[in-house]
Amino acid sequence: MNNNIITKLSYGVYIVTTWSEGRPVGCVANSIMQVTAEPATFAVSINRDNFTNACIKDIKKFAISVLAESSDPKLIGTFGFKSSRVVDKFDGVDYSVQSRLPVLNDSCGYIVCDVIDTMETDTHTVFLGKLVAADSFGSKTPMTYDYYHKVIKGGAPKTAPTYVAEEQTEKTQGGKKYRCTICGYVYEGDEVPDDYMCPICGVGKDLFEEI
Amino acid sequence: MNNNIITKLSYGVYIVTTWSEGRPVGCVANSIMQVTAEPATFAVSINRDNFTNACIKDIKKFAISVLAESSDPKLIGTFGFKSSRVVDKFDGVDYSVQSRLPVLNDSCGYIVCDVIDTMETDTHTVFLGKLVAADSFGSKTPMTYDYYHKVIKGGAPKTAPTYVAEEQTEKTQGGKKYRCTICGYVYEGDEVPDDYMCPICGVGKDLFEEI
Repeated sequence: MNNNIITKLSYGVYIVTTWSEGRPVGCVANSIMQVTAEPATFAVSINRDNFTNACIKDIKKFAISVLAESSDPKLIGTFGFKSSRVVDKFDGVDYSVQSRLPVLNDSCGYIVCDVIDTMETDTHTVFLGKLVAADSFGSKTPMTYDYYHKVIKGGAPKTAPTYVAEEQTEKTQGGKKYRCTICGYVYEGDEVPDDYMCPICGVGKDLFEEI
Repeated sequence: MNNNIITKLSYGVYIVTTWSEGRPVGCVANSIMQVTAEPATFAVSINRDNFTNACIKDIKKFAISVLAESSDPKLIGTFGFKSSRVVDKFDGVDYSVQSRLPVLNDSCGYIVCDVIDTMETDTHTVFLGKLVAADSFGSKTPMTYDYYHKVIKGGAPKTAPTYVAEEQTEKTQGGKKYRCTICGYVYEGDEVPDDYMCPICGVGKDLFEEI
């Protein structure tokens, strides 16, 4: 058996948002698909470890922001590799409230859904949402998961359905530290090598900053 | 509200197969996504009007063949625009039986799943399948739904979750366009040749109409 074929499935890159006690929250998702055309419904798979999962169950509404190739990759670092439990992911993020849901403006557009059903699995909840509002922000090219991996060279959060355990390398030498601005990984050493790739999210030296 | 954003969601192109009384059956699907990583599970949305839907419920197993950019577009015509009720879709198709399920050899590879849950919606069933076998057929580039629309210039079956009534195709300056009334393929040229056959579904000139 060769499971490599499961990496050949095609996805987009999305940020799924809702509210937690009046505070906007959200996380990155790639497992999103339309389920029916009339009415337009969408299935979204969100890990129960994600803070956003319980918030969607509480609010019973969510929004999908469709990321564009031109969207700032740091949105993926913030919404994919941090938790709304400990940080305000929307701090410094350009967002608006559409049909009472927070959506990211640096995207192709959004879909707002009412939750009409759920299916629980071992680790994830599949939310079935019925479209109640949608709009496009210009005619941007949507970011595919393949583009994210190959062009942006990003990785998957551990809570993603498509996560594959990655090798981690321990660095203990030197006194300086550099943090990956995408996923928060800390590199310890005098200088990030030119050909270095973040072991968590795969980005290069230029996206590391000294801390 | 501008629903155009829902066409910006990204998908692959797949053929979902199973058996009907010992006969291989299947249909095209694009709404397929991984739901959990451990165990690997997949959600597949299939219209209840599709013959394959009832067959999956009966057999409780299905296979996903991941189409490649190099896959013969006629597979989409056969499996997407005809019904296993009236034709043998596998007639003349190169397929093999893998882990007791029929899969198409002209693809990137396959995933065989046991059905472990279902969610019914207005028109479609979402099957949750647990991976029991998988393999790749070489290192082909998977066909995305976007590639199918833009490069192969194909349309969506009316039973597809992503079907949009009267799909709009903008006319280029000066040139004429003809649309296949069966599958939506657009022919560009002054006139459809008398011996022309639709590259997707195989019908002749008389089933094309000027747009």
